[in-house]
Amino acid sequence: MKYIAGTLQFERAPGVRAYAAVVGQKEYEGPLGKDFDKVIFDPYAGKSTFEQAESAMLSDAVEAAMNKAGLKADDIDVAFSGDLLNQCVASSFAMRGFSIPYVGLYGACSTMALGLIAAAVGIESGGVRRAVCSASSHFCTAERQYRTPLEYGAQRPPTAQWTVTGAGACLISDDSENKVRIRSAHIGTIVDMGVTDQSNMGAAMAPAAAATITDYLENTQTLAQDYDAIFTGDLGAVGSRLLHTLLSEKGVDIRGVHRDCGAMIYDDGMDVHAGGSGCGCCASVLCGHILRAMERGDYRDILFVPTGALLSPTTVMQGESIPGIAHLVRFTLADA
Amino acid sequence: MKYIAGTLQFERAPGVRAYAAVVGQKEYEGPLGKDFDKVIFDPYAGKSTFEQAESAMLSDAVEAAMNKAGLKADDIDVAFSGDLLNQCVASSFAMRGFSIPYVGLYGACSTMALGLIAAAVGIESGGVRRAVCSASSHFCTAERQYRTPLEYGAQRPPTAQWTVTGAGACLISDDSENKVRIRSAHIGTIVDMGVTDQSNMGAAMAPAAAATITDYLENTQTLAQDYDAIFTGDLGAVGSRLLHTLLSEKGVDIRGVHRDCGAMIYDDGMDVHAGGSGCGCCASVLCGHILRAMERGDYRDILFVPTGALLSPTTVMQGESIPGIAHLVRFTLADA
Repeated sequence: MKYIAGTLQFERAPGVRAYAAVVGQKEYEGPLGKDFDKVIFDPYAGKSTFEQAESAMLSDAVEAAMNKAGLKADDIDVAFSGDLLNQCVASSFAMRGFSIPYVGLYGACSTMALGLIAAAVGIESGGVRRAVCSASSHFCTAERQYRTPLEYGAQRPPTAQWTVTGAGACLISDDSENKVRIRSAHIGTIVDMGVTDQSNMGAAMAPAAAATITDYLENTQTLAQDYDAIFTGDLGAVGSRLLHTLLSEKGVDIRGVHRDCGAMIYDDGMDVHAGGSGCGCCASVLCGHILRAMERGDYRDILFVPTGALLSPTTVMQGESIPGIAHLVRFTLADA
Repeated sequence: MKYIAGTLQFERAPGVRAYAAVVGQKEYEGPLGKDFDKVIFDPYAGKSTFEQAESAMLSDAVEAAMNKAGLKADDIDVAFSGDLLNQCVASSFAMRGFSIPYVGLYGACSTMALGLIAAAVGIESGGVRRAVCSASSHFCTAERQYRTPLEYGAQRPPTAQWTVTGAGACLISDDSENKVRIRSAHIGTIVDMGVTDQSNMGAAMAPAAAATITDYLENTQTLAQDYDAIFTGDLGAVGSRLLHTLLSEKGVDIRGVHRDCGAMIYDDGMDVHAGGSGCGCCASVLCGHILRAMERGDYRDILFVPTGALLSPTTVMQGESIPGIAHLVRFTLADA
């Protein structure tokens, strides 16, 4: 593996062995609905609490990915997972059901990228053969933890995003037959431009996405147009516009190839304001739509750039600004 | 790198380039007081909130470790950090001040081990040259987040542990002159024996520590007596006794070599009941006391086994049991 200034170049080309996504009803009714593996029509998923429901979705996604690969928990070397709940309990309680060595990650909505990068580095080191990466979020757990009780029905400003009820899991392995490979990645640095509005996460995260994309393009001496698509995590409509502006100031134009998972998962008419968000947003779009589209041949070479807002309700109440981060994973077809 | 059933064997022998620990007054007044690099006598550390104080301690520890190594943020390839605060904000806000690619980790009080393992795997992969790992906790941030307002002065049961105000940072590198090396490690699986008492974390974590220690000894075909010491993270007095019982049922006796960071950091007379806890407990004991003692030659070959209780106040209120996890890192002197 080569590593320069945040950019990792993988030599063994760790690949995607299998993937699966589980979502809620609203996400199923959105434009990507047919791509998801399982739908939870009951927000409780038959459990007693929303938190248990989120864990169940995460478990289901991991289980489904293993099933597709014909593998059992015993066959997996290590599991990486993370979520938005305090102390990342959606992941801990989901992974409690699998006897797999477990590493918890926290990158807010960028978490899925951290898992993919950790898995790829593990494979590059020559030791890890198969790792499962997953992430989740749930509208009902996030809303009451970050904002207001669900029953309160608070009005949301136009810049607000809707937390995706969804989970994605991706099995990364060193198998030579894997069609989609992880070629390189970029670990982002924290960027804080002083945004304090927790109802405008897109604005808080866009500068981090801009930094990660420009750093990666510079380190690899490539142009945005060299990729079939650049999928940001969950900047939504507001953050995406800001990203275009910030990048254009640096002479980078991604508009022709840019798509945002938060903008893709819902339709305009779904009353989600600026789009989707949450760890489960880019995780379910990657493991439902994007990887499927790559295997179909719709894309040969893409950048997946999840973004995270590293705030907590406590830091917001204390008047702190919102630090943002973005990590990047380049996926290509094996013959690309 | 070799990896079998959770156990990693490092071939490049990543080593400890520098380390530093920052603690509060109570920890300074404990038996290890003279080993710490900096003491925060004011629980606010001159900041406006306890959360800012925790971030400041973490920053100070990272800064001090870099200074000892004569390195700047630009020289560090990647930073790993984690803490107990909701959404790991102590780490995010501390790392915001360094322009280092940042990976957030969450393993509750086992977090320091996750950072060390991630850094070692990064070095094994051939890409990462220098990584900084850190973790923190603060009595005043943890108490009010997990339990009751500080002013309330709730009575604590005898099994309760006292959250350490402390932070530790460790700079891992591939430099051939490093005296202390990371030879191997073990990533634990989650173990939940059904303990529901959040005032008895030692009991919740002891089964995970027992599983990790026995799995590691079995995978490496070694005995507890082959090591100069086995330092568990923060089982405290109650958890340590349980660990001895659980291990003796499997025919393993670690009593002669076992020490617990939570039991080491405070004196019996300090009114901390079962001992210390928190991500900063084993982090500050490792980066204050243990690594210093190794460099002095007091120990040549040790196992560092941080333990984590993967609960949240929400899961406790929902009546869930407390999943535990333990990870292991073997440190040896370079010539051992």
